Formats: sequence, structure tokens, C-alpha cells
Amino acid sequence: MSKVITSRQADYSKWYNDIVVEADLADHSAVRGCMVIKPHGYAIWEKMQQALDKMFKDTGHVNAYFPLFIPKSLFEAEEKNAEGFAKECAVVTHYRLKTDEKNPGKLMVDPEAKLEEELVVRPTSEAIIWSTYKGWIESYRDLPILVNQWANVVRWEMRTRLFLRTAEFLWQEGHTAHATKEEAIAETKQMLEVYATFAEEFMAMPVIKGVKTPGERFAGADDTYCIEALMQDGKALQAGTSHFLGQNFAKAFDVKFTSREGKLEHVWATSWGVSTRLMGALIMSHSDDKGLVVPPKLAPTQVVIVPIYKGEEGLRKVSEAALSIKKQLQARNITVKYDDRDTQRPGWKFAEYEMKGIPLRIAIGERDLQNGTAEVARRDLNEKQVMTIAEIPDHVEKALADMQQNLFVKAKERMERMTYKVDDYETFKRTLDETPGFILAHWDGTAETEEKIKDETKATIRCIPLDNPQEPGKCIYSGRPSSQRVLFARAY
Amino acid sequence: MSKVITSRQADYSKWYNDIVVEADLADHSAVRGCMVIKPHGYAIWEKMQQALDKMFKDTGHVNAYFPLFIPKSLFEAEEKNAEGFAKECAVVTHYRLKTDEKNPGKLMVDPEAKLEEELVVRPTSEAIIWSTYKGWIESYRDLPILVNQWANVVRWEMRTRLFLRTAEFLWQEGHTAHATKEEAIAETKQMLEVYATFAEEFMAMPVIKGVKTPGERFAGADDTYCIEALMQDGKALQAGTSHFLGQNFAKAFDVKFTSREGKLEHVWATSWGVSTRLMGALIMSHSDDKGLVVPPKLAPTQVVIVPIYKGEEGLRKVSEAALSIKKQLQARNITVKYDDRDTQRPGWKFAEYEMKGIPLRIAIGERDLQNGTAEVARRDLNEKQVMTIAEIPDHVEKALADMQQNLFVKAKERMERMTYKVDDYETFKRTLDETPGFILAHWDGTAETEEKIKDETKATIRCIPLDNPQEPGKCIYSGRPSSQRVLFARAY
Repeated sequence: MSKVITSRQADYSKWYNDIVVEADLADHSAVRGCMVIKPHGYAIWEKMQQALDKMFKDTGHVNAYFPLFIPKSLFEAEEKNAEGFAKECAVVTHYRLKTDEKNPGKLMVDPEAKLEEELVVRPTSEAIIWSTYKGWIESYRDLPILVNQWANVVRWEMRTRLFLRTAEFLWQEGHTAHATKEEAIAETKQMLEVYATFAEEFMAMPVIKGVKTPGERFAGADDTYCIEALMQDGKALQAGTSHFLGQNFAKAFDVKFTSREGKLEHVWATSWGVSTRLMGALIMSHSDDKGLVVPPKLAPTQVVIVPIYKGEEGLRKVSEAALSIKKQLQARNITVKYDDRDTQRPGWKFAEYEMKGIPLRIAIGERDLQNGTAEVARRDLNEKQVMTIAEIPDHVEKALADMQQNLFVKAKERMERMTYKVDDYETFKRTLDETPGFILAHWDGTAETEEKIKDETKATIRCIPLDNPQEPGKCIYSGRPSSQRVLFARAY
Repeated sequence: MSKVITSRQADYSKWYNDIVVEADLADHSAVRGCMVIKPHGYAIWEKMQQALDKMFKDTGHVNAYFPLFIPKSLFEAEEKNAEGFAKECAVVTHYRLKTDEKNPGKLMVDPEAKLEEELVVRPTSEAIIWSTYKGWIESYRDLPILVNQWANVVRWEMRTRLFLRTAEFLWQEGHTAHATKEEAIAETKQMLEVYATFAEEFMAMPVIKGVKTPGERFAGADDTYCIEALMQDGKALQAGTSHFLGQNFAKAFDVKFTSREGKLEHVWATSWGVSTRLMGALIMSHSDDKGLVVPPKLAPTQVVIVPIYKGEEGLRKVSEAALSIKKQLQARNITVKYDDRDTQRPGWKFAEYEMKGIPLRIAIGERDLQNGTAEVARRDLNEKQVMTIAEIPDHVEKALADMQQNLFVKAKERMERMTYKVDDYETFKRTLDETPGFILAHWDGTAETEEKIKDETKATIRCIPLDNPQEPGKCIYSGRPSSQRVLFARAY
């Protein structure tokens, strides 16, 4: 009757996919590598967007919108950026279809409507935005520019997974322009903090803040800061990045400004983004074998009320009590759904809302009414509690706050438990295979060693954590001296 | 010093373009026909989105997201729809760029990365959505589906104008699925009402609700309902459409459901949308030769406070009063900006906020402080008023409500004044040239006549107004009998 999902133990990867599909979050589409984000998944994404958008605006940013397409000549202007994304670009070459004379009812690309210059579907928007900023910036008075864009982007991935890696995904990309290097670096770090705060306070997902090695930097950046989270299976997931772009794009697009002192200088840049990938991170942070678990702050519906009754008269009585509870909860800014559909049975509804991760479920039946009670079930603990109807509003408010906190504490304890200090390569490899997680180990700082470890173990340096304690040691791979441990893991 | 725009009298079309650019709403981009929506323009669009999104949700709709790309074979499935959009489709044919060996530093499309099947960049999403709905719908229990999508779409237009006609634009598209024809028609009409309410109550823009002639229908629809607005220059602008799609897409994509009675039937469909075109309609409804005028309900900043002072001590005193006013207004949910930048003079700021259409401006100077007064200027009336600081909160609240109402009344009176009943073709043509506006005239109901009038005069039948009084008459073109007048105009 109710939907069944694979257990994490049996097949973690399949468990993930089952949840995405069965909790109505997303599904594969008719387009290779592209997903359909279903209403329940999109509603959670909207909650994320709202929280992030407010944080961006509170830090002085405004939204704007730039073209989906980038002419090839602009795209290739910043060479490293272009080189980094060239292999995964969808390219528009024609602007018209016509009737296929040989196949009635079919269309074909009209060869006469070939574009003079091909258009790249944006994989990221630095190029189109910096070519625009050139027209916006003349003097220090025009700076800083603090702009964000909510948009879709396309990166042609060969192996895709719902939310984690899709050819098209939704994201936000901040693109800021500054008069000084210091200000741009401060902005880069500020946005990293915003992302970390969002991850921990809204997603209840602890993260490690750090900086990428040169080999893992964003193509075109001087420095890439990131937040890294640890999933239940011990694999890392990069949850957000904030790039200090130096003057690379200003130079590529010739964007200069007259300083207060009257000098002509190149502008300093940052860019930063998070995407629908966060949906994957959210799922793998808290969910269990019964389905999705969503932190209350991101739950589109925080409480569902299910009536248990026989006949119309029974429903009428139960509904009266249920709607009164609903009203009281809504007065406290709690989002409540009363599901009195007669097309499904209570048991089916219970399973459905468990699968979809609704934080609290209130079941109220005719017999309860006589006692003035109802049953409240909490999704994260799988606990049920019978209480008087009068107690419900206070209880619900507290339970939602507790659950938000509990999910974070649980995830944080798990991350700490699954973080290992390792001092030799054999233990490193064994740890990756037997008890995967974050590994803090010494590295000699060379790209060569980084690459070899990656080739041999599939583990990458996730980041050099910020405020990393300086601690002399020897590189686990080369034995050469190292001044600090860095964070390794296999990653999504 | 301050920006200058062309007057409406001198060149209406240039006036429009000047406002779009000088009020920082949008600008042309490096991509042919695509615009950049600048922060001030995007902030107004966001206000529109918020109001519409709430109305959609209040009527039971949820948001989702479908792929940007549509495989050609899906796109061509509903023949009329495909035929209607084929000529303006951007087509992705390749998924990779590579280094151009002959031109160092340049990229070229990799001929080896040609897609087996071309992908159309969505000009509208019926095809991809109905191919998805096939997997979502089995029984009447799965209906209705009430989904909306906020997205970008691409229609390759040869002649573009900022906001009004651009190759890429932002919009929302609702796509609903129903068990019965009646329910689908009711949904189509409901969404038309939602659009009309939004246009009149938020945009302060009166509209005529009607149904399109078969020749003006959406490609693939059985009926297209629309709202039509009249711009200041007497040209009409289609501001929103709601389509009853019959079973056309269900048949094209084989979407059937088992009814309550156990019968297998095709699903009924609607779709409805409004776009960033509404920004153009907003501008041309209220703005004047000084710049943009925005109704308070859609103004991202409703009140701006400008300090007038000398020296730091002067600024300190004025700021104290200004920030106190700001706080009081915010407590009433009014959005306020205090502009104490020292890089620009008060006169420059006055002109800037006039250009950007901020509804109210409060100027407060050191001398005012002695009298406990400030000057409040209202954008739509170009009126200034000196009042005591204590009076300001009540005055501002009332002035914003008055302005919202005043803009609607003015626009409505103008529309009525510019709507003509015409009974012969000569007067029809003269009216179009000399006093353009809406023309209510008799039409014989044939596509042939409609086409000829369009060819000869460039006027189209905007709609057959709903609840049109039935009134016998003679077609202005053919002289044949007609049972009602229809709404003609030249249009954007």
C-alpha cells in the first residue's frame, strides 16, 4: 500500500534516489541529465531561497537579471574561466526550426537560420556580467556593485544524479565589484559566513569553512572559499563557494574606474553561489529509512493534522476541533495543513507525511474528542505523545524549535565522530574504505601529491580549514614536511 | 547635471526607451535581443512576483520547475503549438566547445559533440510539462494538478524593445490538468480574474477582459482569454493570457486518467502566463516627462528621505530626526530609504528619485528642524507640502493609499476617454490615425475581414470583451450583419 524505499544499509545510493522520487522532490525528465523539480521539492527550495535572499539583502545586496546566453567571443575572454567550462557547454547554433519536407508533421533545424556567432548557455555568468559592468562603472562613486542573480545554469555533465549533479540546475550567483582588494576579500569572506550561517541555522547542517587548494579553485578565481558538509555515508559535499576573483575579469573585460585620487585602476571582483545541490545535502543530512526529514525552518508545511472518523457527522465533529487547533497554530506563524481528503485513509496519510518529512503530525479522532486529547508525532524522533488539546499550541511551538536544534546537534555529533586525524597513508586508505568521513592529515602543499592521492584513493582535499591550527608534521604521501593538516574526503 | 529624457510629445517611443534606461530598469546587452534587468527594474518585478505568487497560492496552486530544454521530438508532438513557435526557437545542437587550434586563445564548437537530437530552448513549456504529467496522472485522485512555474523563456524576435519584446524574457506559466472540461474552463476564467485583479489593484492599470478571435489564439489552445490595457499613446498592450487548451496536449502526449466511474479519459488542460512585459505596461500607464511613476504597492522603496545640511554637525542633527521618521514609517510597514550619501547633492538626489518613481520624498533640513517641520513631495501630483514632523506618519500612510487610487482613477478615465464607438470604416481609419485608442466596432466574425482590416490599418481585434452587450449592427468593413461590437486597436 504505502511507498517503500531502500534502506541506507542496503544501498545508500538507491536510498537517496528513492527518497528524492518517493517524497515527490524531483524526478528525471525527458531531457538527458535535466530534472523536474516537483512541487514538494520546489517548496523546500523556495524556503531556502527566501532565507538566503533575506540574508543577501540584509548585507546590502540587490537582485538583477542577466542574459541566459553568452556570445562565444565574450565567453572566451577570461581564458581560465573559459577553459574550465568549455567542455560542458550547451551551445545554441540556430534560431529557427522549419517543416521537414521529407517527414510530414516533423520539424528540422533550418540551416538558413544559423547564427553568425554561437551562443553559450551560461554555465556561470561572470563573462556576461563583467561585460555589462564595463558600462556601469566609471568612478569610485559607482562602487561597490553588490548584485545577486537567481537563475538557471547549464553544465553538460556526463554522469548525473538528481539535485547533486544535473545538466541544468537552479542557483544564485552573487557578482560584486569593488574599489580595493581588501574590500573584495572582505566581501568574499562575508558571503562565506552567510552561507555557513544559513547551512547551520536553517539546514541544521554543520559545515567546515575553508579555502580550496589551487587545484580545486573555481576557474578564473584567485582564491575559492567553501563550506564542506559531511553526509551520513561519510562522503563530503561542497555546499557553497565564495570566490575572490582578483582583477581577472576586470582585465579580461577592461573594467576600470577613476579612484578618489583620480587614478585609473582595474576593479576587484568576487562571485559566490549555492544551488539546488543543497537539496541533496539536506536530504543526506537528516533523512532516515522512513523517508525525508526536513528541519522545521525549511519545511513548507510544519504541521499536518489528520482526522480519524467515521461518517459525515464524525468528520464534522473532528474537523471543528482540528480547525480550531489549526487556527491557533497559524496565529503563532506555524504553517499547518489540515488533510481531510476522503480519498485516502489515515494510515496512508501517516506514511505519506512521514515520507515527505513533515516535522509534526497531529492525529485527532472521535474518541480523542471525548477525552479532549490528540496525538502528536514528531518526525525526527519517531515519537508519539498524547496530550490535551489545550496543551498543543505550546507543545508544537517548542517541539519545532527542539527539532531544529536536535537535527543540528545530531548532525554535528556525527560529523565530529566521523572526523579522523590520520598520520600515515596506509591508515588513510583503510579509513576511507572502512570508516569513511573527514580525514585531517598532513600534506606537503604540492599539486603533484594532491593529484596522486586523488588518483590512488579518489579522496580529494576538500579544503584547508580556516583558522587551521598550525602544527608541524609530515605529509602522509611524500613524507615531506608540512605545517598544518588539511581536510580530505571522498566527495559528491 | 541631472539626466534628461525625451518628452512624450516629442517622441513617445524614445521617451519610453529613455525611461527604461535612465530609471535604471533595464538595458540592452551584448546578446542580440536580450536585456539586462537592472536592480531597480528587477526590484519592481520582484514586487509583482510576490503579489502574483500569493494570489496563485491563495487559489490553490503550487510552484514547480521543468527543464529549460525540450527535445525536438517532444516539441513537435502538439502540431499547432509547434508550428506556432517553430520560427522563433533557439536550438541547442552541441554540448561542448574545444580549443580552436588555428586561433590561439579562441574556442570553437566541437563537431564531435553534436547532439543526436536537437534541444529547443523553451519558448513555452506545454510540451515538456505534458510529457511529464503523463507520468503523474493515472486516476481522478491525481487531479486536478495546479502547478505554476517561474522561469525564463526564449522566443527569437527579429525586432525587439526593452521589456515589451525581447528574445529572452522572464515569466510565470501556470499549467493545470483537470478531470472535466467544465473545471478546466472555470480555471481558465479564474486565472483571468486573478490577472485582472492584479493589474487593477497592484499596477493601478485598468484592463478589458475578453476572449481572442480564433486568429489571435495561442497556438494549441481551444480558447484564449486575455486582459488588454491601453497605453498613454492610445496603443493597446496584451497584459496577460489564460488559455483553455481542451484535450489537445493530453492527446498529443497520451495523458489519460481513470474517472470515478472507471472510464479511461483524456485530461483537460489550461495554461496561463504573464511576463516582464508587464514592466513595459506599468511604465506606459503612469510615467511622465520627469521619469518613472510607480504605484506605491509595487514600489520597492515607497519613501525616500533626503537630508539637507552643512557639515558633520548639521548632518548629525538632521539624521537624528530623519532616522526617527524612518523608524516610525517602518513600524507601519512602509519601506523607507534614508539617503545620506555625501557623494551627491540634494538636488541631484531629488532628480534621481523623481526619475526612478519613488512615490514620496521627504526633504529635511537644518532650518526645518528649528520649526519642527519637513517637506513631503508626492511623485504623481508633483506637489510639495510642508508639515510638522509629527504629522508625517499619518500623512504618508494616507498619501500612499491616495496615490495608488489616484493612478488607477486617472488611468481609467483616460482609457474611457480614449475608447470610441465607431460605425464606419472611414471613421475607423481616421480615429486610428488621429485619436488612437480602443475602438468598439462591428465585425462580421470572419477571419478574412479580420485579416484585411489588419493589413490595411495595422489594427487588430484585441478581444471580444466578456459580457459584451449584444447589439445588432453592420460590419464596418464588409457591411455584413454583426451581433456585437469587438475591441480593435493598434497594439504593442
